[in-house]
Amino acid sequence: MMVTPGVDELAIFGGQPLFETPRPIGQLAMPDVDEYLALVRRSYDAGSLTDGGENVVALERELETYHGVRNCVSVANAGLGLIMLIQLLAGGRRGEVLMPAFSYRGLPHIARWAGQMPHFSEADALTHTLDVAYLAREIDERTTSILAVCNFNSPGDVEGLCRLAAERDIPIIFDSVDGLGSTYRGRRLGPYGRAEVFSTHATKMLNGFEGGYITTDDDDLAEQLRWQRDHALAAGAPARHRDVLGVNARFNELHAAMTRLSLVGIDAVIARNKARYEAYGAICERLSGLDLLKCTDTAGESSNYRMVVVGVGPNWPLTRDETVSVLRAEGAVIAAYWHPALHLSTHAPAGMPIPRLPVAEALAERFLHLPVGELVSLEDIERIGERLEIVARNGRVVAERLRKAVPA
Amino acid sequence: MMVTPGVDELAIFGGQPLFETPRPIGQLAMPDVDEYLALVRRSYDAGSLTDGGENVVALERELETYHGVRNCVSVANAGLGLIMLIQLLAGGRRGEVLMPAFSYRGLPHIARWAGQMPHFSEADALTHTLDVAYLAREIDERTTSILAVCNFNSPGDVEGLCRLAAERDIPIIFDSVDGLGSTYRGRRLGPYGRAEVFSTHATKMLNGFEGGYITTDDDDLAEQLRWQRDHALAAGAPARHRDVLGVNARFNELHAAMTRLSLVGIDAVIARNKARYEAYGAICERLSGLDLLKCTDTAGESSNYRMVVVGVGPNWPLTRDETVSVLRAEGAVIAAYWHPALHLSTHAPAGMPIPRLPVAEALAERFLHLPVGELVSLEDIERIGERLEIVARNGRVVAERLRKAVPA
Repeated sequence: MMVTPGVDELAIFGGQPLFETPRPIGQLAMPDVDEYLALVRRSYDAGSLTDGGENVVALERELETYHGVRNCVSVANAGLGLIMLIQLLAGGRRGEVLMPAFSYRGLPHIARWAGQMPHFSEADALTHTLDVAYLAREIDERTTSILAVCNFNSPGDVEGLCRLAAERDIPIIFDSVDGLGSTYRGRRLGPYGRAEVFSTHATKMLNGFEGGYITTDDDDLAEQLRWQRDHALAAGAPARHRDVLGVNARFNELHAAMTRLSLVGIDAVIARNKARYEAYGAICERLSGLDLLKCTDTAGESSNYRMVVVGVGPNWPLTRDETVSVLRAEGAVIAAYWHPALHLSTHAPAGMPIPRLPVAEALAERFLHLPVGELVSLEDIERIGERLEIVARNGRVVAERLRKAVPA
Repeated sequence: MMVTPGVDELAIFGGQPLFETPRPIGQLAMPDVDEYLALVRRSYDAGSLTDGGENVVALERELETYHGVRNCVSVANAGLGLIMLIQLLAGGRRGEVLMPAFSYRGLPHIARWAGQMPHFSEADALTHTLDVAYLAREIDERTTSILAVCNFNSPGDVEGLCRLAAERDIPIIFDSVDGLGSTYRGRRLGPYGRAEVFSTHATKMLNGFEGGYITTDDDDLAEQLRWQRDHALAAGAPARHRDVLGVNARFNELHAAMTRLSLVGIDAVIARNKARYEAYGAICERLSGLDLLKCTDTAGESSNYRMVVVGVGPNWPLTRDETVSVLRAEGAVIAAYWHPALHLSTHAPAGMPIPRLPVAEALAERFLHLPVGELVSLEDIERIGERLEIVARNGRVVAERLRKAVPA
């Protein structure tokens, strides 16, 4: 067999992997360690370890300013924040949460912890967020809330979703984890719907090691959430709180101190993300069949450029999953992007009727992550681009060698 | 009015409060700050922030050794650990969790997060833990698990509870937060029932700032818990896992590092607790009507002496709640101990039938906490004793002045 020049360089065929240490898809922005340790020492010396210490209080005020909202309620993690909101807004009812089928695998679990069943809804082909017209047909007497997700590439039709929710009198909340720092109609995500939820996990935009927070302009809701996150144990709770389940979802000083330092650096992080995104964009321009999923970039809008996701088109010689395998062999810790669609996954409750959602299903087969974040340099991206060019130039050979390796 | 000598010294009547800074009821053991910061720097430099880093892994092994169990599964907090276990052990059923009525206010919330209703059960008059004979009559087809609680003063009839659970084929778990370091039949709590749950909140025996862990000798259960605490997202989960809801309940390096240092010092903490307990015991000997709740101290058994709780007897001139008020005015951040009984509290689900549980109800009216932990010195305890002696010596006057202050 004639060896096509370059193909043997691919790690999946025995070549030297590009990266000795893994290149991930998490942001992993690390503030200065000495600044961080100084803050921890201060909390430690003050004996202020948990439960509303100095850094937690300061962070909540700083995030209120950053998002332009009346209330920030920090929580132990974003998932718990969503669970709390869904539980609280259901008002003691057991029903369904309308949510996207093309989204994060944890969402159905989140609805069920809150005593609700997930109800998967169709994606908009352009923004990949909830299709408002489809959603309108799915709302019924069982619906207790709408859980919309703001994607990294687009927050979606926030206004259309909020208008529909208001017309049908259904509470709507936004999982804005992937939209932290991005804008909708020129305003940073944070004030939309009844509340929005963000993450401070190390892999997300703001690194607090772990954690999350809820933003809302609804003072009454914020008060209930503060009570709920602390076991719902404070005395004198009004009777309307009786259906609110309490939980330990408090944030603490260790995480708040780190998040505060991360918040100071967020614009610089976004600038570096944009440089990586543009470097990948230039590579995709040169390659036929790999398409960069574009971030909203209309006049007056900002994106956080946190992820780089590419779609595998008909001209690309490999399948999406084959492309993932080729890059993983090089040391890129990547994966398919939101695959499979939730209604077809093991995360859908057993025995529930499976809808037909062709847009979500097609999207779930199309995209993959590329390595991003602070551990990925522009030079790394160039080298990933070179490997992808080897694949593009030798498409048939690469595909055949890959498929031959699979037992018949 | 003749002023009885000493009464005016009480802060509640305008005297100088005993303590300028609050004296709490939490353990608040603080390992050396430099040792702690060195561990954090090391995790930081390694980029090992979350999700199974070096300290988390090491801590789990160290706790397995400490408790003499096959598996320790660290979790974000003890409440989440209990919720996970109850959810998992219910096997997809919605039913009831049998739990003590004389216990921690968070328990009914915990059961409901796990999709179950709380079923409150009677207390044993001696140990204050679950009354096994009463419990046996309450088990029925709705019961999905038994949540027993090991109290600080006694783990209860662990063997009787486990035998009953086995006979009736009901999973039993222990909330052993208050029993960390104590023994049952000469063996440290940890291996009993299907699993036990402990806390590493700063106010508990091991200070990890926040957090908790589950111990179990059941390898299969441990494997399911590890999968459940990480969103239940790992690929290849067997079909039997389909009813297990995933959640972000991971522990992380910041907390694990602190907990490791705390574990090294736990015997010294228990020794200091015992000294405080004995100092209070000597005071109660001198006072008529305030009775120290004794820790198990039979041959071969150890207690952690973490709390000091006293019962208000008929010879004490004040009610329990009046005594709490007097001490709070002095700067003691104390409270009634497990009041009210859970079935009579706002934490019982609305509309549920209210049982009659005379032992639990009487216990809930009887006890109060006294200040303990690392922020309370033996000298502090002497001074608290002096204030209590003022109350004892001037009982009628104190009671009358307190009651006069209340509007008719």
